[in-house]
Amino acid sequence: MKQSGYPLDCPLPHPLPPTITMAHGGGGSLTQQLIDGLFARHFANPILAQQHDAAALSLDHGRIAITTDSFVVQPLFFPGGDIGSLAVYGTVNDLLMAGAEPRYLTAGFILEEGLPMETLERIVISMAGAAAASGVTIVAGDTKTVNRGHGDGVFINTTGIGLLQHGRTSLPSRIESGDAIVLSGDLGRHGMAVMAAREQLDFSTPLFSDAASLRAPVEALYAAGLGLHCMRDLTRGGLASALNELSDTTGLGCRIDEAAIGVSAPVRGACELLGLDPLYVANEGRFIAVLPAHEAAQAVAVLQTFECGQHAAVIGHVEPRAEAPVLLRNRIGTTRILDRLTGEQLPRIC
Amino acid sequence: MKQSGYPLDCPLPHPLPPTITMAHGGGGSLTQQLIDGLFARHFANPILAQQHDAAALSLDHGRIAITTDSFVVQPLFFPGGDIGSLAVYGTVNDLLMAGAEPRYLTAGFILEEGLPMETLERIVISMAGAAAASGVTIVAGDTKTVNRGHGDGVFINTTGIGLLQHGRTSLPSRIESGDAIVLSGDLGRHGMAVMAAREQLDFSTPLFSDAASLRAPVEALYAAGLGLHCMRDLTRGGLASALNELSDTTGLGCRIDEAAIGVSAPVRGACELLGLDPLYVANEGRFIAVLPAHEAAQAVAVLQTFECGQHAAVIGHVEPRAEAPVLLRNRIGTTRILDRLTGEQLPRIC
Repeated sequence: MKQSGYPLDCPLPHPLPPTITMAHGGGGSLTQQLIDGLFARHFANPILAQQHDAAALSLDHGRIAITTDSFVVQPLFFPGGDIGSLAVYGTVNDLLMAGAEPRYLTAGFILEEGLPMETLERIVISMAGAAAASGVTIVAGDTKTVNRGHGDGVFINTTGIGLLQHGRTSLPSRIESGDAIVLSGDLGRHGMAVMAAREQLDFSTPLFSDAASLRAPVEALYAAGLGLHCMRDLTRGGLASALNELSDTTGLGCRIDEAAIGVSAPVRGACELLGLDPLYVANEGRFIAVLPAHEAAQAVAVLQTFECGQHAAVIGHVEPRAEAPVLLRNRIGTTRILDRLTGEQLPRIC
Repeated sequence: MKQSGYPLDCPLPHPLPPTITMAHGGGGSLTQQLIDGLFARHFANPILAQQHDAAALSLDHGRIAITTDSFVVQPLFFPGGDIGSLAVYGTVNDLLMAGAEPRYLTAGFILEEGLPMETLERIVISMAGAAAASGVTIVAGDTKTVNRGHGDGVFINTTGIGLLQHGRTSLPSRIESGDAIVLSGDLGRHGMAVMAAREQLDFSTPLFSDAASLRAPVEALYAAGLGLHCMRDLTRGGLASALNELSDTTGLGCRIDEAAIGVSAPVRGACELLGLDPLYVANEGRFIAVLPAHEAAQAVAVLQTFECGQHAAVIGHVEPRAEAPVLLRNRIGTTRILDRLTGEQLPRIC
C-alpha cells in the first residue's frame, strides 16, 4: 500500500488546502477541486471520467451481484491496513462470497470538517491500490462534509457490482447436510490489530490485520473445479456469527471442532488478555467454504498454497439441526452451544 | 409519506429496543433483530430476502448506469420530506438524469448510538414509500453504528442501478451549440425549506421542499419523442453550479435569462431575508433539459402538465464560449457572469 505524496513530475490541477472545510461538500468550486485534485487523480479511469450524474457501463451479460458496506473503523490507520483499503477489500470480498467476479465499485465519502487533507489523500491512495490489487474499477463517487464534532474523520461507503458466471452459484440455500466446512486460514488478526491500535496496547509480537482481497484463493478454488455450495467471509461477529447466520438461513446445524481452528499465538495471547473469544473476533481476509465432504481435502490443499491459507483446515460439517444451530467440540472434548453474540464485542472494527 | 407505527395486526418478529446501541452494529443478534424487525420488514422483496453477502439479480440487457450518494441532511425531518425519502429520490434522479430507467437501490446506514428507534423507523418507512413511488427495489443494505458524539443521528448512502435503453443517451458530450436550456420548474424550495427548519425560522407562508422523484416528467419527455441531449438535476449548488459544470465539461458557454426563471414568492422572500441567491440554492426535484431549440417549446408544454412543472420554461441556450462559462441577463437587462460558488452557501442540504 503506497502512502506517498504527489509525484513531483505531475503537478496538481489545483492546490488543495491543508484541511477539509464544509465548503468541500457544498457543490461549488472547492468540491470540484477536491474531485479533480484528489479523487479523479487517484481513481482515474474512463468510466469515472464521464463526469455525469451516473456512470454508464456495459456488462458482458445480464446477471450481476450487488453489495453495499459502510466503513467506520477507528483508528483510520492500523497495522496491516486502513479504512481505505478495508473499504475496498470488504466489498470485493462480499462479491466473491456470492460467487461473483468483482468488477465495479462506487465510493461515498463522509468527511468531517477539519480532516487533514494529507490523511484523506493517504486513504484515497490506499483505496486506489487496493482496487488495483482486487481487479476492480471505482466508477462513481460522492463527497459530503459534516461539521466538526458530527462525524469522525472519514466514513466510507463502498458499493460493489460483480458478474455472476454460469455455474458459480454460492448461496446458503445450496448447503446440504453432510457438507464439509473449510476455514481458509487462522482467525482474529484484523479485530485484534484494530483493537491493539485503538487502545494503544503494546504486545511483544505486533499484530497485523489480515485485511486482503480474497480474489486469488476463491478463483483458485473455482479453477480446481470444486463444487462450492456456499462461501461466507468472517467479518463482524467472526466465525461464530457466520455459522449461526448460515444455520438460521438453512435450518440445518453446524458442528465444528475447536482444535482444527487456527489462531496464532499473538492473537490468542491478546484475546486472553482482553477476555475475548477469537471465534467472535472480526477477520477481513478469511472465509469459510461449504462444499461436499469428499472435496474438502482438495479445497484445503488449494488454500494452503496461499500464504494467508497456511492454516486452512476442515473445521466441521453440516448436519440436521440438533439442540442448537451451532455446536462446538472444544479442546478438552466437551461439546457446547456456540451462540450468537448478544452484546457488542469489538465496536467499529470495519 | 407514511409515518405510522407498526400495523396492529402484524406483530414484530422481535421487539426492538427504544434506542440504537453500539451492539446494533456488532454483527450479532441485535444486528439481526434490527435487520429482521425493521429493514427487511419495510423493504421486503425477494432479492433482499436472499440474505447473503451480495444480492444476485438479473438485468434485461447489459448496459447500466450506476450512481452513489451519501445523505447527511440536518434536520433529519423537514417540511416536504426527510433524510430517507431524500436518499431515495436523490439517487433515483441521478439515474434519470443519465437517461437510465431506475431499477435497484442499496442502502447503507451509519447510526449514532442513542438514536431513537422510532426516528429510524419513520425514516425507513419513508424510504420504502419513496422507493415504491419511484419504481425501484432496495436490494442490499448495511448498518453500522458509531459512538454517541461521533455521528449525527443518521447518515444514509444510497447507490442506484438503472438500465440504459437504446436511444436514451443523456450525456454532457451530446450538448451542442444552439441547444435550448429548459428548466423543469421553480427554484429553491428544498434549500430554503431545510434552512428554515434548521434555523427554526417562521415564515408567514410555510416553505416545503420540492424533493420528489423525477421519473414521471422525464418519462413524459422521452415519450414525447424529444431528442434530449443532456439532463441534470439542480441539487447542491443549484442551477448556477449545474450550468457551470456542464459548460466546463463541454467547453461551450451558457447564456440564460433571469426573468424566465421561476422563483416562488415565499422562496424569494426567504432568500432576500437570508442574503441568498436562489440560483445557487439546492433543489431535489428540479432539473434542466438541454435539447435542440426547435423542440424546446414542446418540452415546456410536456413539463407543464405536471404540478411540479407549472413554472417550466426555456431559460436560455448554449453557445460558443464567450468571456465566461455562464452568462446571466438579469431583470434590468444587464449581463453578468454567473460564477461557480466559491464558499459554502447551505451546508448539509442533502
